[in-house]
Amino acid sequence: MADHDGSDRITPVILCGGSGTRLWPVSRRSFPKQFAPLAGDESLFRRTVRRLTGPDFAAPVAVTGADFRFVVAEQMLAEGVDPGAILIEPDARNTAPAALAAALWLARRDPGALMLIAPSDHLIADDAGFRAAVLAARPAARDGRIVVFGVAPDRPETGYGWIEPGPGAGVVPVRRFVEKPAADLAAALLAEGGHLWNMGIFLCTPAALCAAFDRHAPDLVAPVRAAFEGAEADLGFLRLAPGPWQEARPVSLDYAVIEHADTLAVQPYAGAWSDLGDWSAVQRELGDAATPAQDRALALDCEDTLLRAESPDQVLVGIGLRGIVAVAMPDAVLVADRSRTQEVKRAVEALSRAGAAQAADLPRSYRPWGWFEVLSRGPRFQVKRIAINPGGRLSLQRHIHRSEHWVVVSGTVRVTLGDTVTLLTENESTFIPLGERHRLENPGRLPATLIEVQTGAYLGEDDIERLEDAYARDRGR
Amino acid sequence: MADHDGSDRITPVILCGGSGTRLWPVSRRSFPKQFAPLAGDESLFRRTVRRLTGPDFAAPVAVTGADFRFVVAEQMLAEGVDPGAILIEPDARNTAPAALAAALWLARRDPGALMLIAPSDHLIADDAGFRAAVLAARPAARDGRIVVFGVAPDRPETGYGWIEPGPGAGVVPVRRFVEKPAADLAAALLAEGGHLWNMGIFLCTPAALCAAFDRHAPDLVAPVRAAFEGAEADLGFLRLAPGPWQEARPVSLDYAVIEHADTLAVQPYAGAWSDLGDWSAVQRELGDAATPAQDRALALDCEDTLLRAESPDQVLVGIGLRGIVAVAMPDAVLVADRSRTQEVKRAVEALSRAGAAQAADLPRSYRPWGWFEVLSRGPRFQVKRIAINPGGRLSLQRHIHRSEHWVVVSGTVRVTLGDTVTLLTENESTFIPLGERHRLENPGRLPATLIEVQTGAYLGEDDIERLEDAYARDRGR
Repeated sequence: MADHDGSDRITPVILCGGSGTRLWPVSRRSFPKQFAPLAGDESLFRRTVRRLTGPDFAAPVAVTGADFRFVVAEQMLAEGVDPGAILIEPDARNTAPAALAAALWLARRDPGALMLIAPSDHLIADDAGFRAAVLAARPAARDGRIVVFGVAPDRPETGYGWIEPGPGAGVVPVRRFVEKPAADLAAALLAEGGHLWNMGIFLCTPAALCAAFDRHAPDLVAPVRAAFEGAEADLGFLRLAPGPWQEARPVSLDYAVIEHADTLAVQPYAGAWSDLGDWSAVQRELGDAATPAQDRALALDCEDTLLRAESPDQVLVGIGLRGIVAVAMPDAVLVADRSRTQEVKRAVEALSRAGAAQAADLPRSYRPWGWFEVLSRGPRFQVKRIAINPGGRLSLQRHIHRSEHWVVVSGTVRVTLGDTVTLLTENESTFIPLGERHRLENPGRLPATLIEVQTGAYLGEDDIERLEDAYARDRGR
Repeated sequence: MADHDGSDRITPVILCGGSGTRLWPVSRRSFPKQFAPLAGDESLFRRTVRRLTGPDFAAPVAVTGADFRFVVAEQMLAEGVDPGAILIEPDARNTAPAALAAALWLARRDPGALMLIAPSDHLIADDAGFRAAVLAARPAARDGRIVVFGVAPDRPETGYGWIEPGPGAGVVPVRRFVEKPAADLAAALLAEGGHLWNMGIFLCTPAALCAAFDRHAPDLVAPVRAAFEGAEADLGFLRLAPGPWQEARPVSLDYAVIEHADTLAVQPYAGAWSDLGDWSAVQRELGDAATPAQDRALALDCEDTLLRAESPDQVLVGIGLRGIVAVAMPDAVLVADRSRTQEVKRAVEALSRAGAAQAADLPRSYRPWGWFEVLSRGPRFQVKRIAINPGGRLSLQRHIHRSEHWVVVSGTVRVTLGDTVTLLTENESTFIPLGERHRLENPGRLPATLIEVQTGAYLGEDDIERLEDAYARDRGR
C-alpha cells in the first residue's frame, strides 16, 4: 500500500479504465489496447508502470474497470510493483471522475503527497527524459500549480490539444489551450512555433486538484466524493460505490477542469510521444520495424502500408498496396484505407449490432485465476485450453448440461471432485460427470495448462453454478 | 466402372490434378481450388461431376495426383457418382499427358466411346445449357472431329485463348486460334465480333484424340503409353507408371495438339463461364453476393472490393477500400490490389521459400480415412480434432516420442490398444501410452469425431511407425 513518509516522492495515478475500440481487432472492450502487446512484447500499461517506478515514485494508484482489475494486478505483479491502490470504477465515466476519485483517496491517505495523473495507453519513447521532466515540475506542483506536460509538435495534427506557453524556460504558465484545431489553424500554430501538444499528463497536489474541481466542475464533487466515501474494500481492490458514481457526469479531465484552471503551468518533455489513437498513429510511430508481425507479414511492392499478423500461427500477404492498414488476428481481420482508420470505431459498433462476438471479445478470456480460450466448437462439444496461474483457484462449481474431460499438459493441478481431492500432473487426465461438484486449482509454483473437452447439449459459459469462489464471483462479481 | 453398352453415352474425363496457387489462401497445393468451396458451399469439382451426370453420360474418369485421390473419391461419392476410373498421375505434367492417358484407357475399355475432356476448376453457370451444347456436338465428334466449346466474349480479355469460327451455325470448323492476345488485339477481336473464348473443354473419340497426338505431339505418345501400359491397379485407383510418366513433356493439351489439329470444330455455349483464374476473376463472376463470407464481412464505404472471410469463426472488416481483394482464413490472409492478383502465385513462392507451412498446407489435412486439424500447439503438447469417415481405418501404428489421450465427441470408434479392442462412444475417452501399438477405426454409419491431446518431447507427424495400413501407406504411399 502507499507509504508517503514525509519524502517528496510522487504517487503515479494511472488511468486504465478506457476501452478504446479504434485499435480493433487488437484492442477490444474485454481487453483494451493498454493491456495488449501493441508495441513490442509488452503492454503499454506495463511500460507506463515501469516508467513511473524508482526512488522518486511511491506505489502507484490505478483506476480501472471491474473487468480489468485482475489484469491490472497481474501486469503490476509482472513488473514487480505492489500497487498503492486499485480503485474500481463501477462504470467508465471518462477521466475527470477517475482523477477526482484518486485525488480524494490520496488526500485521505497522505495529504502532503504529489500525484502524477497519467494515461496508460500512450507511447513515451524516452523514459528517463520523461522522469526528468516530472522531477523538474515538482517544485511548481508543490507550490500549488497544476503542471501539464507538453511535447513539441512535428506536424499540423488536428487530433490533439495545443498549448501556448507563457514566456520563459522550464515550467511556465499556460497562456491558452487550443483543443483539436482545424487544419489551417494547426498549420498556423506549427508555423508560429513555440506551441506544445497536451500530453494529458498532470502533476499536482490532491488539494490543488480538488480545489480546481470545486471551482470549475462543482457538480462532479458530490457524486464522486459519495462514491469514494461509500467505497468497499474487496480482495485488495477499492470498489467505488455504484449508486453515486453513476450520478457523475462522464467528462474528460481536460474539458472539465484543466482548460479552465488558472493555476496551470506547462513543463516541456523533449522526447517522442504518441497517443497511439488509431492505426495510422501506430504506423507513424512504430513503422513496420516495431510490429510483432514482421516475420509473418509479407509485403510485395507495398508502400505506406502497415501489415500486422498478430498470431504466431498466421501469415499476412500484401500485394501492390498503397496507404493501407491491415491487421490480422485468427478470429478477426481489419483492412482499411490509412486515411480512414478513425472509422474503425464505427465498424466495431456495426459488428456489435450484428451480434459478432469479435466486436468486444478476444478468443482468450482472462479470469482472476488465469485465462482460457476456445480451440474448437462443434455439435455437442467444445474444446478449451485453460491456463491457471500459480496459486490460481477456479470456483467450486457444477454444470447442469455438460460433462468435462481434463488432460493436463503442463504443470500440476489439484482437482476436487465430489468429496475427493487429487493431484494431476502432465499427461494425466480426469473426467467430470455432469452435475458433479468440482474445483480446479494450481497449488504449484509453475503455470499449469490443461485441455478441457466439454460434451453436452448446451455449452454456454452461463451453465455454471458457483458454490464458492476465491474471487467473490459467487456474489455476482 | 465404365459401362459403354453400345449407346451413344459420353464419358466425362475430368482433369483435376492441378494445384493452382493463384487463389491462395483458399487454394493450396495440398487442397487446390477445384476441391475447395470457392463459389457457394460446394466445390467446383463436385459441380463439374454433377453437371456431367445423367442419361447421356457414362461414369466419369478422373485424372488426378496421388495426394488428391481420396478427395476425388470422396467428393464423387458425395455426389452419388461411381467413377469409371481414377487415374493417378505420379506427378503433375499439365493437361496433354493427362488427356492422352485417359484416351488410352477409354480406347482400351470401349473403343466406340465419346470422351468429354473437361477441367474441374471452371465456373459454368448454366448446367442444362452446357449439356445441350455437348449433345449438339455429339454428331461431329462421332464423325471424328475434335469439338472445342466456345463462349461469346464480353470484354477484351488478354488471359484467354480466342477462337475465330468458320461460317455457319452450330458446330463449325475453327478458322484460327489467338492465344492470349495483346490488349489492342483483344479489343479488335471483341469489336470485330463473332469470336469465341476457348473454354478448354473438348468432345471427341479416343481414336481421334490419339490420332491428333500421333500427328502433332508424337514425342508424348511413347512415354504416356508406357505409363498407361505399366499402370498398377491399387485400391480402386489406376496408378500410372512413374518411370515413363516423367519422360512425358509437361505441356497443355491446347498447345500440344488442339491448336494444330485440322479436324477441329467449335460448338458455342451460350451461358456464363469463367476459369476463375485469379481473385479478380472470382470477384467479377461471383461478386460479393455469392461469396460464402457475406454475413461475416463488413464493408464500410468500399467499392470494387472483394471481402471474403472463409471461416465461420472469423470476421473481416473493410473500410474505405477501392479495388482491393481481401481473403481471410484463420491461418493466412491475403490483401491485394485488384490489378495485381496474378502475383499471388509469386507471394506463395516467397512464403514457401521462407518455410511457411501456409504456402502449401491447410490447417485441415485430408487423409484416406477422413481428416484432422491441429487446434493448438504448445511446449510438449498438441491438440488435434480428428474426423473419421464411416468405414475409415487409421493405420495400426505406434509412436516413439508421444502418448495420446482420445476423447470421442461424436459417433463411435473402435480402438485397438495392444491386444485389446474396445468400442468408445460419445463422451468416452482412452489413453494411448508411448510406444503402445494402436489403431483407430470408425465401424459405424455416422462420421466419428474425436479430440486428441498429444504430449511428449517431439510431436512431428513423422513420429509414426505404420505396422499395417488399409490404404497401402505402410508401403510408402
